Amino acid sequence: MRIDVHFGTQLPAAGDVAGRLVVVIDVLRASTVIATALDHGARAVVPLESPDEAVTRARSFSREDVLLTGERRMLAISGFDLGNSPREFSREVVEGKSILMTTTNGTAALLAVSGARDVVVASYVNFTAVLTMLRAALRGGTDVAIVCAGSERRFSLEDAACAGRFVHHLLKGRSEAESNDAALAAALLHGRYGDNLAKLFATASHGKALAAAGFSDDLLACAAIDAHPVIPVYQDRQITKLGPERER
Amino acid sequence: MRIDVHFGTQLPAAGDVAGRLVVVIDVLRASTVIATALDHGARAVVPLESPDEAVTRARSFSREDVLLTGERRMLAISGFDLGNSPREFSREVVEGKSILMTTTNGTAALLAVSGARDVVVASYVNFTAVLTMLRAALRGGTDVAIVCAGSERRFSLEDAACAGRFVHHLLKGRSEAESNDAALAAALLHGRYGDNLAKLFATASHGKALAAAGFSDDLLACAAIDAHPVIPVYQDRQITKLGPERER
Repeated sequence: MRIDVHFGTQLPAAGDVAGRLVVVIDVLRASTVIATALDHGARAVVPLESPDEAVTRARSFSREDVLLTGERRMLAISGFDLGNSPREFSREVVEGKSILMTTTNGTAALLAVSGARDVVVASYVNFTAVLTMLRAALRGGTDVAIVCAGSERRFSLEDAACAGRFVHHLLKGRSEAESNDAALAAALLHGRYGDNLAKLFATASHGKALAAAGFSDDLLACAAIDAHPVIPVYQDRQITKLGPERER
Repeated sequence: MRIDVHFGTQLPAAGDVAGRLVVVIDVLRASTVIATALDHGARAVVPLESPDEAVTRARSFSREDVLLTGERRMLAISGFDLGNSPREFSREVVEGKSILMTTTNGTAALLAVSGARDVVVASYVNFTAVLTMLRAALRGGTDVAIVCAGSERRFSLEDAACAGRFVHHLLKGRSEAESNDAALAAALLHGRYGDNLAKLFATASHGKALAAAGFSDDLLACAAIDAHPVIPVYQDRQITKLGPERER
């Protein structure tokens, strides 16, 4: 039984994810937005690499069925419907829609883990829902790999701490579980900040940058532990909510 | 004033090292070997990527002036003079010699930071010597970047903790200094283990692997804080001891 963590400074090698349940974390803000949108009834979130790709893909939908969303350097993209603030993804706005999302960090991480058995998207707002799935996987003999997307391929404190919260809960009482050095470091970071996410975000460089750019309310939304208890599953290049028919 | 840390999972971008004093850390065992050899009078250490390259380069030396050293998967390379155990690099063996060293992790890190202003090699055995140089650099307005070589491009606990020891000492009393998320995480790891390097190495995966392979004595050597107070400088593709004539 293995629980490994990979800091997003390097995307994991194929051997690190093959046959595993992979968790991709981008707390500020893509993972949080995805959980929020799916919890509010969005049909699917389609992560795309570039704004151009999003515009092209949108042509295969009726205009009223789709929302173009995402950010570049934290700000909304010109001509897009929404930016990357969780608060924008209300039920009134997203219910029944397909969301074409272009992000700086999350997309690359998702594409890199294509050899995984299953890929789920995690953040603080859907922590316990994902934790439940991870526990079931480990009980069934599937190893876990947690990939921290990071910020522009740099180590991000908030993604590592969120990964560490998973490691902390998964290792508890499992003396036989093995984990890599990054998992130990992540658990230690979680131990330092605990659930004081306000302090965590105020310390993390991307949290500071968001606050300075006027997105302090987003930080509050990203810190709302278990506010959106969904399990977003990435399959066939789109992310959908794990529903009762797929529940295991 | 900036003090940043880069975990070796990704080598730093050129912009992260340009104009900076760069510290490369590979505690287990390359950095420790380099400091030990230079302290024991080796003329220079030449890091090379492959055993073949080392053999080829050796032809330009008189056989008695050169030592072929290094490891693959922790073990000595067939036909080489020495492996990668600090204890092998005694004064009797290395004095006056040029050491052609082929390592798995350290060489790539050194080659990646070629845009730096200066590159020094650090470990616990030469910690305070390097710290003194870093303090002087910061006082002179030069930013610092600390690169953890890691183990096969994975995050290594012991390199991060050693980096954190530098961050801890450098940030003390410098409220104006800025640092990245990895520097904060590294400092926290140092705080967790402090100078209990036996515990650090016993926890780190590469430390465990070395102990299992019979290299427990090497771990003791790598934990001897300040035993070899030299400043190894990488320049023109070789590492030499910063001597009085270059002291600043």
